[in-house]
Amino acid sequence: MREVFHQSLEDVQARLVEIAELVTVAMEGATRAFGTSDVALAEEIIEADAVIDTKAAEIDELAIQILARQQPVARDLRIVVAALRVSASLERMGDIAEHIAQFTRMRFPERAIPKGLKSTFTKMGELDVEAARKLTELLRTEDLSLVEELRALEEQLDDLHISVFEKVLSENWQGEAAATVDATLASRYLERFADHAVSVAKKVAYLATGEWSTATDEIPVITPAITRD
Amino acid sequence: MREVFHQSLEDVQARLVEIAELVTVAMEGATRAFGTSDVALAEEIIEADAVIDTKAAEIDELAIQILARQQPVARDLRIVVAALRVSASLERMGDIAEHIAQFTRMRFPERAIPKGLKSTFTKMGELDVEAARKLTELLRTEDLSLVEELRALEEQLDDLHISVFEKVLSENWQGEAAATVDATLASRYLERFADHAVSVAKKVAYLATGEWSTATDEIPVITPAITRD
Repeated sequence: MREVFHQSLEDVQARLVEIAELVTVAMEGATRAFGTSDVALAEEIIEADAVIDTKAAEIDELAIQILARQQPVARDLRIVVAALRVSASLERMGDIAEHIAQFTRMRFPERAIPKGLKSTFTKMGELDVEAARKLTELLRTEDLSLVEELRALEEQLDDLHISVFEKVLSENWQGEAAATVDATLASRYLERFADHAVSVAKKVAYLATGEWSTATDEIPVITPAITRD
Repeated sequence: MREVFHQSLEDVQARLVEIAELVTVAMEGATRAFGTSDVALAEEIIEADAVIDTKAAEIDELAIQILARQQPVARDLRIVVAALRVSASLERMGDIAEHIAQFTRMRFPERAIPKGLKSTFTKMGELDVEAARKLTELLRTEDLSLVEELRALEEQLDDLHISVFEKVLSENWQGEAAATVDATLASRYLERFADHAVSVAKKVAYLATGEWSTATDEIPVITPAITRD
Protein backbone atom coordinates (compact mmCIF):
# COMPACT_ATOMS: atom_id res chain seq x y z
CA MET A 1 0.00 0.00 0.00
CA ARG A 2 2.86 2.41 0.82
CA GLU A 3 4.42 1.62 -2.51
CA VAL A 4 1.18 2.18 -4.36
CA PHE A 5 0.86 5.49 -2.54
CA HIS A 6 4.34 6.56 -3.53
CA GLN A 7 3.72 5.62 -7.13
CA SER A 8 0.57 7.72 -7.04
CA LEU A 9 2.44 10.66 -5.56
CA GLU A 10 5.10 10.38 -8.24
CA ASP A 11 2.35 10.43 -10.81
CA VAL A 12 0.89 13.60 -9.26
CA GLN A 13 4.31 15.21 -9.16
CA ALA A 14 5.04 14.32 -12.79
CA ARG A 15 1.72 15.83 -13.81
CA LEU A 16 2.38 19.03 -11.86
CA VAL A 17 5.78 19.33 -13.56
CA GLU A 18 4.08 18.80 -16.92
CA ILE A 19 1.59 21.62 -16.26
CA ALA A 20 4.36 23.92 -15.04
CA GLU A 21 6.16 23.26 -18.34
CA LEU A 22 3.02 24.13 -20.29
CA VAL A 23 2.64 27.31 -18.23
CA THR A 24 6.26 28.22 -19.01
CA VAL A 25 5.68 27.73 -22.74
CA ALA A 26 2.46 29.76 -22.49
CA MET A 27 4.12 32.69 -20.69
CA GLU A 28 7.08 32.61 -23.07
CA GLY A 29 4.76 32.74 -26.09
CA ALA A 30 2.41 35.28 -24.53
CA THR A 31 5.15 37.76 -23.69
CA ARG A 32 6.80 37.26 -27.10
CA ALA A 33 3.47 37.86 -28.86
CA PHE A 34 2.90 40.89 -26.63
CA GLY A 35 6.29 42.35 -27.52
CA THR A 36 6.09 41.74 -31.27
CA SER A 37 2.33 42.05 -31.90
CA ASP A 38 2.35 38.49 -33.22
CA VAL A 39 -1.37 37.85 -33.29
CA ALA A 40 -1.07 34.29 -34.68
CA LEU A 41 1.13 33.30 -31.74
CA ALA A 42 -1.29 35.04 -29.37
CA GLU A 43 -4.15 32.95 -30.79
CA GLU A 44 -2.14 29.77 -30.21
CA ILE A 45 -1.53 30.66 -26.58
CA ILE A 46 -5.20 31.50 -26.03
CA GLU A 47 -6.27 28.16 -27.50
CA ALA A 48 -3.65 26.19 -25.58
CA ASP A 49 -4.96 27.39 -22.21
CA ALA A 50 -7.80 24.85 -22.40
CA VAL A 51 -5.19 22.07 -22.26
CA ILE A 52 -3.77 23.49 -19.03
CA ASP A 53 -7.28 23.74 -17.54
CA THR A 54 -8.06 20.14 -18.46
CA LYS A 55 -4.78 18.83 -17.07
CA ALA A 56 -5.29 20.74 -13.81
CA ALA A 57 -8.76 19.23 -13.47
CA GLU A 58 -7.28 15.77 -14.08
CA ILE A 59 -4.77 16.28 -11.27
CA ASP A 60 -7.58 17.32 -8.95
CA GLU A 61 -9.50 14.19 -9.83
CA LEU A 62 -6.41 12.04 -9.32
CA ALA A 63 -5.78 13.64 -5.92
CA ILE A 64 -9.37 12.97 -4.85
CA GLN A 65 -9.06 9.35 -5.93
CA ILE A 66 -5.83 8.99 -3.95
CA LEU A 67 -7.58 10.40 -0.88
CA ALA A 68 -10.50 8.00 -1.36
CA ARG A 69 -8.54 4.83 -2.07
CA GLN A 70 -5.36 5.24 -0.08
CA GLN A 71 -6.59 7.39 2.77
CA PRO A 72 -3.25 8.99 3.52
CA VAL A 73 -2.67 10.63 6.90
CA ALA A 74 -0.15 13.06 8.40
CA ARG A 75 2.45 14.39 5.99
CA ASP A 76 1.22 12.21 3.11
CA LEU A 77 -2.23 13.74 3.44
CA ARG A 78 -0.79 17.25 3.46
CA ILE A 79 1.14 16.52 0.28
CA VAL A 80 -2.03 15.48 -1.54
CA VAL A 81 -3.95 18.54 -0.29
CA ALA A 82 -1.01 20.75 -1.31
CA ALA A 83 -1.13 19.23 -4.81
CA LEU A 84 -4.73 20.43 -5.12
CA ARG A 85 -3.61 23.94 -4.30
CA VAL A 86 -0.56 23.85 -6.53
CA SER A 87 -2.69 22.76 -9.47
CA ALA A 88 -5.10 25.66 -8.79
CA SER A 89 -2.21 28.14 -8.79
CA LEU A 90 -0.71 26.72 -11.98
CA GLU A 91 -4.09 26.89 -13.67
CA ARG A 92 -4.36 30.54 -12.65
CA MET A 93 -0.86 31.25 -14.00
CA GLY A 94 -2.01 29.77 -17.31
CA ASP A 95 -5.01 32.13 -17.26
CA ILE A 96 -2.69 35.08 -16.78
CA ALA A 97 -0.57 34.06 -19.79
CA GLU A 98 -3.82 33.87 -21.72
CA HIS A 99 -4.81 37.39 -20.57
CA ILE A 100 -1.47 38.75 -21.84
CA ALA A 101 -2.07 37.04 -25.19
CA GLN A 102 -5.58 38.52 -25.31
CA PHE A 103 -4.12 42.04 -25.08
CA THR A 104 -2.09 41.40 -28.20
CA ARG A 105 -5.15 40.17 -30.08
CA MET A 106 -7.33 43.00 -28.79
CA ARG A 107 -4.95 45.76 -29.86
CA PHE A 108 -3.84 44.21 -33.16
CA PRO A 109 -2.74 45.69 -35.58
CA GLU A 110 -1.66 48.32 -33.06
CA ARG A 111 1.16 47.46 -30.70
CA ALA A 112 -0.07 46.15 -27.37
CA ILE A 113 2.81 47.57 -25.34
CA PRO A 114 2.31 51.27 -24.58
CA LYS A 115 5.04 53.58 -25.85
CA GLY A 116 7.80 54.32 -23.38
CA LEU A 117 7.24 51.05 -21.50
CA LYS A 118 8.72 48.60 -23.99
CA SER A 119 11.89 47.85 -22.01
CA THR A 120 9.98 47.58 -18.71
CA PHE A 121 7.46 45.10 -20.08
CA THR A 122 10.16 43.13 -21.90
CA LYS A 123 12.01 42.78 -18.60
CA MET A 124 8.85 41.83 -16.70
CA GLY A 125 8.07 39.16 -19.29
CA GLU A 126 11.59 37.73 -19.04
CA LEU A 127 11.41 37.60 -15.25
CA ASP A 128 8.05 35.81 -15.37
CA VAL A 129 9.35 33.22 -17.83
CA GLU A 130 12.37 32.71 -15.58
CA ALA A 131 10.04 32.32 -12.59
CA ALA A 132 8.00 29.70 -14.46
CA ARG A 133 11.20 27.80 -15.35
CA LYS A 134 12.49 27.87 -11.79
CA LEU A 135 9.10 26.77 -10.49
CA THR A 136 9.10 23.81 -12.89
CA GLU A 137 12.57 22.91 -11.67
CA LEU A 138 11.49 23.24 -8.02
CA LEU A 139 8.52 20.93 -8.58
CA ARG A 140 10.79 18.42 -10.31
CA THR A 141 13.77 18.47 -7.96
CA GLU A 142 12.44 19.93 -4.68
CA ASP A 143 15.69 21.90 -4.59
CA LEU A 144 14.75 24.48 -1.97
CA SER A 145 17.44 26.95 -2.98
CA LEU A 146 15.04 27.79 -5.82
CA VAL A 147 12.50 29.16 -3.33
CA GLU A 148 14.75 32.09 -2.49
CA GLU A 149 15.51 32.64 -6.17
CA LEU A 150 11.79 32.81 -6.89
CA ARG A 151 11.29 35.31 -4.10
CA ALA A 152 14.06 37.47 -5.56
CA LEU A 153 12.35 37.38 -8.97
CA GLU A 154 9.03 38.34 -7.38
CA GLU A 155 10.66 41.34 -5.68
CA GLN A 156 12.12 42.51 -8.97
CA LEU A 157 8.68 42.21 -10.54
CA ASP A 158 7.11 44.19 -7.68
CA ASP A 159 9.63 46.97 -8.24
CA LEU A 160 8.97 47.03 -11.97
CA HIS A 161 5.20 47.02 -11.33
CA ILE A 162 5.61 50.11 -9.14
CA SER A 163 7.83 51.72 -11.79
CA VAL A 164 5.03 51.30 -14.36
CA PHE A 165 2.69 53.31 -12.12
CA GLU A 166 5.37 55.92 -11.54
CA LYS A 167 5.84 56.27 -15.27
CA VAL A 168 2.13 56.44 -16.04
CA LEU A 169 1.53 58.98 -13.28
CA SER A 170 4.54 61.14 -14.15
CA GLU A 171 4.23 64.46 -15.92
CA ASN A 172 6.09 63.07 -18.92
CA TRP A 173 3.47 60.43 -19.61
CA GLN A 174 2.01 61.12 -23.03
CA GLY A 175 -0.10 58.00 -23.35
CA GLU A 176 -3.78 58.19 -24.12
CA ALA A 177 -6.28 56.63 -21.74
CA ALA A 178 -6.14 53.35 -23.70
CA ALA A 179 -2.39 53.11 -23.16
CA THR A 180 -2.86 53.85 -19.45
CA VAL A 181 -5.49 51.11 -19.12
CA ASP A 182 -3.27 48.61 -20.95
CA ALA A 183 -0.19 49.47 -18.92
CA THR A 184 -2.15 49.15 -15.66
CA LEU A 185 -3.70 45.78 -16.41
CA ALA A 186 -0.69 44.19 -18.13
CA SER A 187 1.60 45.22 -15.29
CA ARG A 188 -0.85 43.89 -12.73
CA TYR A 189 -1.06 40.52 -14.53
CA LEU A 190 2.70 40.19 -14.91
CA GLU A 191 3.20 40.95 -11.23
CA ARG A 192 0.46 38.51 -10.10
CA PHE A 193 2.02 35.69 -12.13
CA ALA A 194 5.12 35.74 -9.94
CA ASP A 195 2.96 35.98 -6.78
CA HIS A 196 1.37 32.68 -7.72
CA ALA A 197 4.78 31.14 -8.42
CA VAL A 198 6.01 32.17 -4.97
CA SER A 199 2.84 30.92 -3.35
CA VAL A 200 3.45 27.47 -4.91
CA ALA A 201 7.12 27.60 -3.89
CA LYS A 202 6.11 28.29 -0.28
CA LYS A 203 3.89 25.22 -0.27
CA VAL A 204 6.70 23.06 -1.59
CA ALA A 205 9.05 24.49 1.05
CA TYR A 206 6.46 23.98 3.77
CA LEU A 207 6.04 20.33 2.87
CA ALA A 208 9.79 19.81 2.77
CA THR A 209 10.61 21.57 6.03
CA GLY A 210 7.32 21.68 7.92
CA GLU A 211 7.89 25.40 8.44
CA TRP A 212 6.53 28.52 6.89
CA SER A 213 9.20 31.02 6.06
CA THR A 214 9.00 33.98 8.40
CA ALA A 215 9.64 36.26 5.46
CA THR A 216 6.21 35.38 4.11
CA ASP A 217 3.08 37.48 4.10
CA GLU A 218 1.02 34.34 4.14
CA ILE A 219 -0.18 33.23 7.51
CA PRO A 220 0.90 29.87 8.82
CA VAL A 221 -1.54 27.03 9.05
CA ILE A 222 -3.08 27.25 12.48
CA THR A 223 -4.12 24.23 14.43
CA PRO A 224 -7.39 25.01 16.15
CA ALA A 225 -8.23 23.10 19.28
CA ILE A 226 -10.40 20.35 17.90
CA THR A 227 -11.21 17.79 20.51
CA ARG A 228 -14.11 15.91 19.01
CA ASP A 229 -13.08 12.78 17.20
CA MET B 1 -18.62 7.57 12.99
CA ARG B 2 -21.19 8.82 10.45
CA GLU B 3 -22.66 11.05 13.10
CA VAL B 4 -19.26 12.44 14.04
CA PHE B 5 -18.63 13.09 10.36
CA HIS B 6 -21.90 14.95 9.97
CA GLN B 7 -21.18 17.04 13.04
CA SER B 8 -17.79 17.90 11.57
CA LEU B 9 -19.36 18.87 8.26
CA GLU B 10 -21.87 21.07 10.04
CA ASP B 11 -18.99 22.72 11.83
CA VAL B 12 -17.22 23.36 8.51
CA GLN B 13 -20.42 24.73 6.99
CA ALA B 14 -21.05 27.04 9.96
CA ARG B 15 -17.49 28.35 9.66
CA LEU B 16 -17.84 28.97 5.93
CA VAL B 17 -21.06 30.89 6.59
CA GLU B 18 -19.26 32.91 9.25
CA ILE B 19 -16.47 33.86 6.83
CA ALA B 20 -18.98 34.72 4.12
CA GLU B 21 -20.64 37.06 6.63
CA LEU B 22 -17.32 38.71 7.41
CA VAL B 23 -16.64 39.10 3.69
CA THR B 24 -20.06 40.73 3.27
CA VAL B 25 -19.33 43.19 6.08
CA ALA B 26 -15.89 43.88 4.56
CA MET B 27 -17.27 44.57 1.08
CA GLU B 28 -20.06 46.72 2.47
CA GLY B 29 -17.58 48.81 4.46
CA ALA B 30 -15.01 48.91 1.66
CA THR B 31 -17.45 50.19 -0.94
CA ARG B 32 -18.94 52.70 1.54
CA ALA B 33 -15.46 53.99 2.41
CA PHE B 34 -14.62 54.12 -1.31
CA GLY B 35 -17.74 56.17 -2.06
CA THR B 36 -17.40 58.61 0.84
CA SER B 37 -13.59 58.81 1.23
CA ASP B 38 -14.01 57.56 4.81
CA VAL B 39 -10.42 56.73 5.58
CA ALA B 40 -11.08 55.57 9.16
CA LEU B 41 -13.56 53.01 7.89
CA ALA B 42 -11.09 51.97 5.17
CA GLU B 43 -8.45 51.36 7.88
CA GLU B 44 -10.90 49.18 9.79
CA ILE B 45 -11.60 47.04 6.74
CA ILE B 46 -7.89 46.69 5.98
CA GLU B 47 -7.18 45.55 9.53
CA ALA B 48 -10.14 43.17 9.65
CA ASP B 49 -8.87 41.19 6.65
CA ALA B 50 -6.38 39.37 8.86
CA VAL B 51 -9.33 37.85 10.75
CA ILE B 52 -10.75 36.46 7.50
CA ASP B 53 -7.33 35.04 6.57
CA THR B 54 -6.98 33.36 9.96
CA LYS B 55 -10.47 31.89 9.86
CA ALA B 56 -9.91 30.56 6.35
CA ALA B 57 -6.68 28.89 7.49
CA GLU B 58 -8.57 27.35 10.43
CA ILE B 59 -11.16 25.85 8.09
CA ASP B 60 -8.39 24.38 5.96
CA GLU B 61 -6.82 22.84 9.03
CA LEU B 62 -10.18 21.48 10.17
CA ALA B 63 -10.81 19.98 6.72
CA ILE B 64 -7.41 18.28 6.75
CA GLN B 65 -8.12 16.85 10.21
CA ILE B 66 -11.48 15.53 9.02
CA LEU B 67 -9.75 13.85 6.07
CA ALA B 68 -7.16 12.32 8.38
CA ARG B 69 -9.45 11.12 11.14
CA GLN B 70 -12.67 10.26 9.36
CA GLN B 71 -11.35 9.29 5.95
CA PRO B 72 -14.51 10.13 4.07
CA VAL B 73 -15.06 8.67 0.60
CA ALA B 74 -17.32 9.37 -2.38
CA ARG B 75 -19.59 12.40 -2.00
CA ASP B 76 -18.48 13.05 1.59
CA LEU B 77 -14.88 13.33 0.43
CA ARG B 78 -15.86 15.72 -2.36
CA ILE B 79 -17.67 17.94 0.12
CA VAL B 80 -14.56 18.27 2.28
CA VAL B 81 -12.34 19.00 -0.73
CA ALA B 82 -14.91 21.55 -1.96
CA ALA B 83 -14.78 23.24 1.47
CA LEU B 84 -11.04 23.79 0.97
CA ARG B 85 -11.75 25.51 -2.33
CA VAL B 86 -14.65 27.56 -1.01
CA SER B 87 -12.50 28.84 1.85
CA ALA B 88 -9.78 29.84 -0.66
CA SER B 89 -12.33 31.79 -2.74
CA LEU B 90 -13.79 33.53 0.32
CA GLU B 91 -10.32 34.48 1.48
CA ARG B 92 -9.63 35.98 -1.94
CA MET B 93 -12.93 37.90 -1.83
CA GLY B 94 -11.79 39.36 1.50
CA ASP B 95 -8.51 40.40 -0.15
CA ILE B 96 -10.46 42.22 -2.86
CA ALA B 97 -12.51 44.14 -0.27
CA GLU B 98 -9.19 45.08 1.32
CA HIS B 99 -7.82 46.29 -2.04
CA ILE B 100 -10.87 48.56 -2.49
CA ALA B 101 -10.31 49.95 1.02
CA GLN B 102 -6.64 50.53 0.18
CA PHE B 103 -7.63 52.76 -2.74
CA THR B 104 -9.52 54.99 -0.38
CA ARG B 105 -6.55 55.27 1.96
CA MET B 106 -4.09 55.79 -0.89
CA ARG B 107 -6.03 58.65 -2.46
CA PHE B 108 -7.14 60.34 0.77
CA PRO B 109 -7.90 63.26 1.14
CA GLU B 110 -8.78 63.15 -2.56
CA ARG B 111 -11.83 61.16 -3.58
CA ALA B 112 -10.97 57.64 -4.64
CA ILE B 113 -13.75 57.37 -7.21
CA PRO B 114 -12.82 59.06 -10.49
CA LYS B 115 -15.14 61.84 -11.60
CA GLY B 116 -17.90 60.79 -13.93
CA LEU B 117 -17.89 57.21 -12.62
CA LYS B 118 -19.54 57.75 -9.24
CA SER B 119 -22.90 56.17 -10.14
CA THR B 120 -21.24 53.24 -11.93
CA PHE B 121 -19.00 52.39 -9.00
CA THR B 122 -21.81 52.87 -6.49
CA LYS B 123 -23.89 50.38 -8.46
CA MET B 124 -20.99 47.92 -8.77
CA GLY B 125 -20.43 48.10 -5.02
CA GLU B 126 -24.11 47.47 -4.31
CA LEU B 127 -24.16 44.47 -6.64
CA ASP B 128 -21.07 42.99 -4.98
CA VAL B 129 -22.55 43.40 -1.50
CA GLU B 130 -25.74 41.76 -2.75
CA ALA B 131 -23.66 38.93 -4.23
CA ALA B 132 -21.86 38.42 -0.90
CA ARG B 133 -25.23 38.30 0.92
CA LYS B 134 -26.71 35.81 -1.50
CA LEU B 135 -23.57 33.69 -1.28
CA THR B 136 -23.82 33.64 2.52
CA GLU B 137 -27.46 32.57 2.20
CA LEU B 138 -26.56 29.88 -0.32
CA LEU B 139 -23.88 28.45 1.98
CA ARG B 140 -26.35 28.48 4.86
CA THR B 141 -29.44 27.09 3.13
CA GLU B 142 -28.13 25.37 -0.02
CA ASP B 143 -31.10 26.94 -1.79
CA LEU B 144 -29.96 26.45 -5.37
CA SER B 145 -32.25 29.13 -6.78
CA LEU B 146 -29.61 31.52 -5.44
CA VAL B 147 -27.06 30.16 -7.92
CA GLU B 148 -28.94 31.66 -10.85
CA GLU B 149 -29.41 34.92 -8.96
CA LEU B 150 -25.66 35.09 -8.38
CA ARG B 151 -25.00 34.49 -12.06
CA ALA B 152 -27.37 37.32 -12.94
CA LEU B 153 -25.49 39.65 -10.57
CA GLU B 154 -22.19 38.62 -12.12
CA GLU B 155 -23.51 39.43 -15.60
CA GLN B 156 -24.60 42.88 -14.47
CA LEU B 157 -21.14 43.44 -13.02
CA ASP B 158 -19.49 42.30 -16.26
CA ASP B 159 -21.61 44.82 -18.19
CA LEU B 160 -20.71 47.63 -15.79
CA HIS B 161 -17.03 46.65 -15.96
CA ILE B 162 -17.15 46.99 -19.76
CA SER B 163 -18.99 50.30 -19.41
CA VAL B 164 -16.13 51.65 -17.26
CA PHE B 165 -13.67 50.91 -20.08
CA GLU B 166 -16.03 52.47 -22.63
CA LYS B 167 -16.22 55.59 -20.53
CA VAL B 168 -12.48 55.81 -19.92
CA LEU B 169 -11.70 55.23 -23.61
CA SER B 170 -14.36 57.66 -24.89
CA GLU B 171 -13.52 61.08 -26.25
CA ASN B 172 -15.35 62.71 -23.37
CA TRP B 173 -13.07 61.22 -20.74
CA GLN B 174 -11.33 64.09 -18.98
CA GLY B 175 -9.64 62.04 -16.27
CA GLU B 176 -5.92 62.30 -15.67
CA ALA B 177 -3.79 59.17 -15.87
CA ALA B 178 -4.23 58.61 -12.11
CA ALA B 179 -8.01 58.54 -12.51
CA THR B 180 -7.67 56.12 -15.43
CA VAL B 181 -5.45 53.79 -13.39
CA ASP B 182 -7.87 53.88 -10.45
CA ALA B 183 -10.92 53.28 -12.61
CA THR B 184 -9.22 50.35 -14.34
CA LEU B 185 -8.07 48.58 -11.18
CA ALA B 186 -11.16 49.28 -9.06
CA SER B 187 -13.45 48.05 -11.80
CA ARG B 188 -11.36 44.94 -12.29
CA TYR B 189 -11.49 44.16 -8.55
CA LEU B 190 -15.24 44.72 -8.29
CA GLU B 191 -15.84 42.46 -11.26
CA ARG B 192 -13.51 39.70 -9.95
CA PHE B 193 -15.31 39.67 -6.59
CA ALA B 194 -18.51 38.43 -8.24
CA ASP B 195 -16.53 35.90 -10.32
CA HIS B 196 -15.33 34.31 -7.10
CA ALA B 197 -18.87 34.31 -5.68
CA VAL B 198 -20.16 32.50 -8.77
CA SER B 199 -17.26 30.05 -8.65
CA VAL B 200 -18.23 29.15 -5.06
CA ALA B 201 -21.89 28.92 -6.04
CA LYS B 202 -21.04 26.47 -8.82
CA LYS B 203 -19.23 24.22 -6.35
CA VAL B 204 -22.24 24.22 -4.02
CA ALA B 205 -24.51 23.41 -6.97
CA TYR B 206 -22.18 20.67 -8.17
CA LEU B 207 -22.18 19.00 -4.78
CA ALA B 208 -25.97 19.23 -4.55
CA THR B 209 -26.73 17.96 -8.04
CA GLY B 210 -23.58 16.16 -9.15
CA GLU B 211 -23.70 18.18 -12.36
CA TRP B 212 -21.86 21.16 -13.69
CA SER B 213 -24.13 23.71 -15.21
CA THR B 214 -23.66 23.76 -18.96
CA ALA B 215 -23.80 27.54 -18.84
CA THR B 216 -20.46 27.56 -17.08
CA ASP B 217 -17.09 28.48 -18.46
CA GLU B 218 -15.47 26.18 -15.96
CA ILE B 219 -14.62 22.77 -17.20
CA PRO B 220 -16.18 19.74 -15.58
CA VAL B 221 -14.13 17.45 -13.40
CA ILE B 222 -12.74 14.76 -15.66
CA THR B 223 -12.17 11.23 -14.54
CA PRO B 224 -8.91 9.99 -15.98
CA ALA B 225 -8.46 6.28 -16.48
CA ILE B 226 -6.65 5.31 -13.30
CA THR B 227 -6.23 1.61 -13.01
CA ARG B 228 -3.49 1.23 -10.47
CA ASP B 229 -4.77 0.73 -6.99
